[in-house]
Amino acid sequence: MKNRKQVPEFFKFLQDEICDGLEKLDGTSRFNEDNWTRVKGGGGRTRVIEEGSVFEKGGVNFSEVFGDAPNQIIRTLGLDGEEFENARFYATGLSIVVHPKSPMVPIIHMNIRYFNLTDMEGQQISEWFGGGIDLTPHYVVDTDARFFHEKLKSVCDRFDANYYDKFKPWADEYFFLTHRNESRGIGGIFFDRMVNDNSHTLEQHFEFIQAVGKSFLPIYEELVLRNQNLPFGKKEEEWQAIRRGRYVEFNLVHDRGTRFGLQTEGRTESILMSLPKTATWKYKFKPDKGSKEELTLKKLVKGIAWVK
Amino acid sequence: MKNRKQVPEFFKFLQDEICDGLEKLDGTSRFNEDNWTRVKGGGGRTRVIEEGSVFEKGGVNFSEVFGDAPNQIIRTLGLDGEEFENARFYATGLSIVVHPKSPMVPIIHMNIRYFNLTDMEGQQISEWFGGGIDLTPHYVVDTDARFFHEKLKSVCDRFDANYYDKFKPWADEYFFLTHRNESRGIGGIFFDRMVNDNSHTLEQHFEFIQAVGKSFLPIYEELVLRNQNLPFGKKEEEWQAIRRGRYVEFNLVHDRGTRFGLQTEGRTESILMSLPKTATWKYKFKPDKGSKEELTLKKLVKGIAWVK
Repeated sequence: MKNRKQVPEFFKFLQDEICDGLEKLDGTSRFNEDNWTRVKGGGGRTRVIEEGSVFEKGGVNFSEVFGDAPNQIIRTLGLDGEEFENARFYATGLSIVVHPKSPMVPIIHMNIRYFNLTDMEGQQISEWFGGGIDLTPHYVVDTDARFFHEKLKSVCDRFDANYYDKFKPWADEYFFLTHRNESRGIGGIFFDRMVNDNSHTLEQHFEFIQAVGKSFLPIYEELVLRNQNLPFGKKEEEWQAIRRGRYVEFNLVHDRGTRFGLQTEGRTESILMSLPKTATWKYKFKPDKGSKEELTLKKLVKGIAWVK
Repeated sequence: MKNRKQVPEFFKFLQDEICDGLEKLDGTSRFNEDNWTRVKGGGGRTRVIEEGSVFEKGGVNFSEVFGDAPNQIIRTLGLDGEEFENARFYATGLSIVVHPKSPMVPIIHMNIRYFNLTDMEGQQISEWFGGGIDLTPHYVVDTDARFFHEKLKSVCDRFDANYYDKFKPWADEYFFLTHRNESRGIGGIFFDRMVNDNSHTLEQHFEFIQAVGKSFLPIYEELVLRNQNLPFGKKEEEWQAIRRGRYVEFNLVHDRGTRFGLQTEGRTESILMSLPKTATWKYKFKPDKGSKEELTLKKLVKGIAWVK
């Protein structure tokens, strides 16, 4: 890409915008910032909010790391071949996870990222964008799920009529707990390895990434405002704690970003900000028949067409 | 091994003994039993205790599974080569994790296992025993740590004067959270691939496995009795919840048994009984200087010689 520097610049700009927006929405707590450096190259700007009125724990993390691409990274990326020997990598991204206090407000996650591999002479091997947004309501509300997917579809449609139909099933596959045979939430969009090709330039991918990133705040604002004043009690909090347990399982067992981060000696506290403040595991927990918890479980499956 | 059937028989016998002992120790709660079958071969007898007076959540799980050994299993075992094509595996084991209610009582874990690989004609390729016991005190108490390691060493010494010196560092390596640069607890012993060799027969290994298994109950009983009546408050419970968070991280990110189980389509509820009822993550949590929590952290390192 011609002006690669613009990517981290945009991510930082967006981090500011989103943190400001979430702070306003919360009304009480502020983000704390930690600037950190990675011994082997690069660093990041981690921002975490805790114990707010609306948000119990959330992180909005910018990072920009680079250096020698160890074999482990090459393999994790599914790459192979002589050209990757002595390769160097550059990766920058913005990662967000927000755990609200109220079980009636959904957990949200977004990641947008840019990745670049060069050979030992500094020649470009490959570069791409990737990302995704997904929503994990403790209770699935159909109208909210439709709103969420419609908004994502409209962002996709502005760039390619096929994007949503490709990226929505991709999210269904990715945000899935195979060991539970259960979706993490209602999905969203997921995409990766968006390279310069016949249909789109890298610059166009960057435009798309920006649009996805910009959509985060208004979408989540709407979902928070719709649900934050709904009443709830002990039962809903218990269910929330169990759903959070599943979130922990997904992130530690399946999530590629988390595993990549822990493997590449990323900053553990920044990576694991995605974990909720509390989580619960109950052996063989099953919601009562006909309960709203059971109804939610039935909707944690792949392939629901939220947008007709 | 001549009488392979004895292995699962012993594991079941020991499961009974340990469950009886833990129930007596608890005084209130009883284990619930679930018998389950694995679609691709075998099954297990899962026993879980919840909401006791002493034990908040614990599992004592017997399993015996077999079938075609998929490439994934072969690779997970670190094996390779033509002889493993169309191999069949047989694995039986007893796994225990106990999370006590009181933060003053340590979490304990034991696993003992037997593994067997045969080729497509039913000829033995390889068979071995493995296992380990380790202790995770929320607060490290030196006298308890010494007691624990002395008991394990005396079991080891009855079989081989070199066992403890080999298996104690192995546990230090295994029960370690690389991403936190922190030991899970005070370690114990860990051993694997104990095959029939010049120094010991498989039958002798089985004797050792039995001795390790038999040592579990008296060791843990003593540690529970020593600590169960110690006073504690909110601060100790918060620290316990954070240590439990680390336990979750270890089991989901690092533990080979957990990952093997989830990969081989084991029974998820049985595998994840090892997770505590509740856990907490606080961003960048650091205990106060000079506090007993900080003192414990300083002892969560490799290489402490608990037995002089």
